[in-house]
Amino acid sequence: MKVVFWGKEFFRLKESLDRAFAGHDILIADTADGAEALAEAEMLVVRPVTVDEALLSRAPALKLVQQWGAGAEGIDLEACSRRGVYACNVPSVGTGNAEGVAEVAFLHMLILAKRFFRAREKLLQGKVYTPPGIALWGKKACVIGLGNVGRSITVRMKAFGMKVTGVNRTLPADSARWGIDAFVPLTDAENAVKGAKFVVAALALTPETENIVDEPLFRAMDRDAFFINVARGGIVSRRALERALEEEWIAGAGLDVLWEEPHRTDDPFLSHPKVVVTPHIGGVNDASQEGVLRFIAGNASRIAEGRQPLSCLNESGMGREKS
Amino acid sequence: MKVVFWGKEFFRLKESLDRAFAGHDILIADTADGAEALAEAEMLVVRPVTVDEALLSRAPALKLVQQWGAGAEGIDLEACSRRGVYACNVPSVGTGNAEGVAEVAFLHMLILAKRFFRAREKLLQGKVYTPPGIALWGKKACVIGLGNVGRSITVRMKAFGMKVTGVNRTLPADSARWGIDAFVPLTDAENAVKGAKFVVAALALTPETENIVDEPLFRAMDRDAFFINVARGGIVSRRALERALEEEWIAGAGLDVLWEEPHRTDDPFLSHPKVVVTPHIGGVNDASQEGVLRFIAGNASRIAEGRQPLSCLNESGMGREKS
Repeated sequence: MKVVFWGKEFFRLKESLDRAFAGHDILIADTADGAEALAEAEMLVVRPVTVDEALLSRAPALKLVQQWGAGAEGIDLEACSRRGVYACNVPSVGTGNAEGVAEVAFLHMLILAKRFFRAREKLLQGKVYTPPGIALWGKKACVIGLGNVGRSITVRMKAFGMKVTGVNRTLPADSARWGIDAFVPLTDAENAVKGAKFVVAALALTPETENIVDEPLFRAMDRDAFFINVARGGIVSRRALERALEEEWIAGAGLDVLWEEPHRTDDPFLSHPKVVVTPHIGGVNDASQEGVLRFIAGNASRIAEGRQPLSCLNESGMGREKS
Repeated sequence: MKVVFWGKEFFRLKESLDRAFAGHDILIADTADGAEALAEAEMLVVRPVTVDEALLSRAPALKLVQQWGAGAEGIDLEACSRRGVYACNVPSVGTGNAEGVAEVAFLHMLILAKRFFRAREKLLQGKVYTPPGIALWGKKACVIGLGNVGRSITVRMKAFGMKVTGVNRTLPADSARWGIDAFVPLTDAENAVKGAKFVVAALALTPETENIVDEPLFRAMDRDAFFINVARGGIVSRRALERALEEEWIAGAGLDVLWEEPHRTDDPFLSHPKVVVTPHIGGVNDASQEGVLRFIAGNASRIAEGRQPLSCLNESGMGREKS
């Protein structure tokens, strides 16, 4: 199998890739000059990038577009189906991915709640027992999106003694077991965020969720609320977040994702005094890397053996013969 | 009641104190020149400081030494009893204190696990999906000290999918309900820390626990382990921690407490590349401040009414008449 890893970010994983894909013919390609690699690729492994008809047409040997992770919103599934190409993602729960994203949501919540940067200033001044932060314990939180990530966040919030309102298109069947205190449909999100000290976005990016976190939602939040985004930049209106911070509709934000990837180094959010930004590290950890690698290598082998790959997003639309 | 708050750190709470102690005669005294206040004090409210015979002898009207918080290791209980002075602390659980300390333990764990400072460097370079951190999920942790704080940490670790070995003098009766995976007596702590990625100290400081975290314990830890102290500096040998970091017996440390309070602003730990320090903010949050205030004001009223105060540490030794 000729497996192409699409993007120079994969270079730092080279050793692990060589190990996990022993027996396959792998290549890491810079998207800027990867035409040759693309022309021969049977399997294309991608980060969140656009995989459309134009790209697919440059990869005539392609059998599988494999997302590195869960969020495959950049892949045009219909275009893949038309060409008989499988499109797969990696299930996020149980691989350390959803769990890792939930952990990064807590990193942001705790840095904001405990006023970590202010605490460091106080520390260097020789002060102790200050600044007073807020306890997560006893606070209301609102989790928007109740997929694997939202569930992982909710379970952890409940152990922290928080009251959790979950927002989703539909109520997941097993959500009672996670301990959710209240459920509000996505169409009524503005009511769900009222009174919440933390509003955490954990929603997949789709055409329907693009810019769903917009001015009305920020205006509905409490003035002392923190907004955390561990999903995708695109679900939030950038201008609305800027206004919400400028005009003090909310107290601050924690962002593991921005609107462009990679972001501009002069993006004003990077140095915004009310904002904590991390470089999309939610799913990037030892457990998920092993989990994702194992899963993707497994799919490579399945394709090589003429079997159907796992976690296929476009199965029904497949035109390809199965062997 | 003449209530003296011992230490200038209390000045920043002045408004809250005035409100909570309406009806009492309150005074905030700098320990450096508080002799006059001390001479008239009926109730002395203290942060973790030394309250010994020498101090008590300067406070002839004293009826109650009240710790602001749970850790009352600075109060000489016998000296209080000899003088017929109650010594009380504030119970830590259910007031936001133990819960807040557990949250700060997680703040440290997450900053270290996700390599937060390195992530910020990468961010400013325009990099994404890096640095790879570690997942807490699936990792082994060792919690030393299973009081209210240790319990609060354990419950949260379990929700994060961690395996928890608890270390304590004795096994708490209800610890099975917290979900502890293994119990190891304090005398055998060196075996408990092996294989743990996070070793969290949550032990009260007593003569028996002073410097209990010493070279042998650090040497027993894994080289990739992080040590977190949210208890008191005194339970850790400073020199041993310095060596453990220098000689790479462990990977890093998160400290909410140092050895002196307030610390020296030139303390090398403040800028140590492998160490995250916060200025003893564990118990300092909105919930605990309200909880502690309410509790202490309640004790002031009880003393004023000739009743016994709550959460007394030296009841049995009291020589004072009860009215």
